[in-house]
Amino acid sequence: MNLLQETLAAITSVDEAASAAALARLNSLTKPLGSLGRLEEIVRRYAAIRRDGSARWGGGAIAVFVADHGVADEGVSAYPKAVTLQMLRNIAQGGAAISVLARHFGFELKVIDAGVETDTSGTPMHGVTYRRIGPGTQSFLRGPAMSAEQARRALEVGIEIAREAAGAGATLLGIGEMGIANSTSAAALLCAATGVAPAAIAGRGTGLDDTQLRHKVEVVEGALGLHRAALSDPLATLAALGGFEIAAMAGVCVGGAAFHVPVVVDGFIATAAATIAAKLHPALRDCLFFAHRSSEGGHALALEHLRARPILDLDMRLGEGSGAALAMAVIRAGLELFHEMATFAGAGVSEKLK
Amino acid sequence: MNLLQETLAAITSVDEAASAAALARLNSLTKPLGSLGRLEEIVRRYAAIRRDGSARWGGGAIAVFVADHGVADEGVSAYPKAVTLQMLRNIAQGGAAISVLARHFGFELKVIDAGVETDTSGTPMHGVTYRRIGPGTQSFLRGPAMSAEQARRALEVGIEIAREAAGAGATLLGIGEMGIANSTSAAALLCAATGVAPAAIAGRGTGLDDTQLRHKVEVVEGALGLHRAALSDPLATLAALGGFEIAAMAGVCVGGAAFHVPVVVDGFIATAAATIAAKLHPALRDCLFFAHRSSEGGHALALEHLRARPILDLDMRLGEGSGAALAMAVIRAGLELFHEMATFAGAGVSEKLK
Repeated sequence: MNLLQETLAAITSVDEAASAAALARLNSLTKPLGSLGRLEEIVRRYAAIRRDGSARWGGGAIAVFVADHGVADEGVSAYPKAVTLQMLRNIAQGGAAISVLARHFGFELKVIDAGVETDTSGTPMHGVTYRRIGPGTQSFLRGPAMSAEQARRALEVGIEIAREAAGAGATLLGIGEMGIANSTSAAALLCAATGVAPAAIAGRGTGLDDTQLRHKVEVVEGALGLHRAALSDPLATLAALGGFEIAAMAGVCVGGAAFHVPVVVDGFIATAAATIAAKLHPALRDCLFFAHRSSEGGHALALEHLRARPILDLDMRLGEGSGAALAMAVIRAGLELFHEMATFAGAGVSEKLK
Repeated sequence: MNLLQETLAAITSVDEAASAAALARLNSLTKPLGSLGRLEEIVRRYAAIRRDGSARWGGGAIAVFVADHGVADEGVSAYPKAVTLQMLRNIAQGGAAISVLARHFGFELKVIDAGVETDTSGTPMHGVTYRRIGPGTQSFLRGPAMSAEQARRALEVGIEIAREAAGAGATLLGIGEMGIANSTSAAALLCAATGVAPAAIAGRGTGLDDTQLRHKVEVVEGALGLHRAALSDPLATLAALGGFEIAAMAGVCVGGAAFHVPVVVDGFIATAAATIAAKLHPALRDCLFFAHRSSEGGHALALEHLRARPILDLDMRLGEGSGAALAMAVIRAGLELFHEMATFAGAGVSEKLK
């Protein structure tokens, strides 16, 4: 078996006994039963995924995968392709939104070049991990974005990143991305996975006008027609329409589930990755937290399709894992309450009247 | 003029020029225009309230007001009245939800006894500020909860707490509360202020069953009938139906607006306080952030009535300022992005294609 197959085979269902143990403690804390609402669900799910009723916190890490897309050449983005490399540098240097948020909340930031067009690995940038699958994908309007082999290798990059983070002690992983034109790839993947029409899914990305958005929808429609034969298989779908960073994020979802580390899925593009991952192994769906409802295109629709209620709803559409970082801070706060609040008995507080 | 009148007179409209200055900086940062969504609105509003286009951060403080309610004797709460004092101690000793969250996020916590039934000021608890208006209110099913003089003094306690916090450098204030039966008082105030029926507003509080909830609704209906003559005036409404901690929270809203410090309104009970405060001076509405949509009773309806979209929606209903603390962390993160992100020019990132 290859690493992808091995990792998929290691995925089990989550541990409901750990969830029940966490609930027992939650009910002993000085608060009305259930009054922490979704924070209680979050703590219980975290415990179930971790298979640890004590819901121990080991640290959070955010993996931001960066790659270029051949479909950028079809005029589907408001920004030039060169911005991918510029933003890779900006993220690594600490000036991007995700750099600021990871630092502020104390989460480790891993910045991975999964296939930016310009190869800088010869004179590597400080803070960048190079796991390049290629110099960007091909335009999926002309053929498959990548080969099946590349799709598997990109997934395995994500699995390896998850394994490294888990090995270093992280108990919560966030996934994010940067890649000019990747909302077009994500829209195509989401349409393929959900059957929803491109016009209801594709969004303005970094700032398309109405005419440009219509063109983007046509590009997605064209791609879905061209690759129809591939769309019954998730790996083939990923190869046909995906990006290296999207495949790698899907790999983190697979790895997180196998290594018992919850994965916090950022916005539109990360949700496309999670959707493909869940097609590879449906049980991993229970190991994911959806960070926020992005204002990009049909993200709300995609979340409904996944029956996912996101943690936050802040109209963000920046990517990079920025929504994941904020949601991880909420999860972290829920765990802090779980660990640090007094119990009724310990604090001498009367319980509910019978 | 008394302190309340003076403070109300000092309230002005927010500074739109500061909001515009903040927007100019937001648009220079390395992200698609507007892509931080509500975080951008939050930063702009913060700047406008602070009258400071640089949106400087000085620190956050959370004021938790604790008091008892005569209406608790009407059997409207799932917990015994003694819990108010027990929770005052628990909050001050660090074991309550708000204690944990304030510590975790680095916000100052002010715990104020505004009128708990048992007076502990003779042997004061560590960490408690005593500003007692009385040993709890009277049952508003028998007469007014407090005198007009007590209502004004309780409001002034809140104004003084806001002034002290602003004087000590805080640039963001959260308000929260604890007081057995105070969701009944808050429900009555919200019904009086919005005209919505008690059955649509009153909730299960700390855990009423269906029969108990029907009784609570009847209590609120009875109180609204008894005090009908008072309900055209916000101060008289507060005296008739309020609580000392609710009046004090309304005072923080008044003080925050006068001293240019944004106030983050917690959940159901704090929203009742904010509603009354906004009746005292409509312009202060622009100085409030609503933290979260509580799952208590008709909180969602009350927010709609205020045309308020809360920052979070986590089904919480714990009070104490716990939702405010989480929302303050989101606001703080928005400000951190505003201050720390690189600009397009500074990071050498290309701007949008024309």
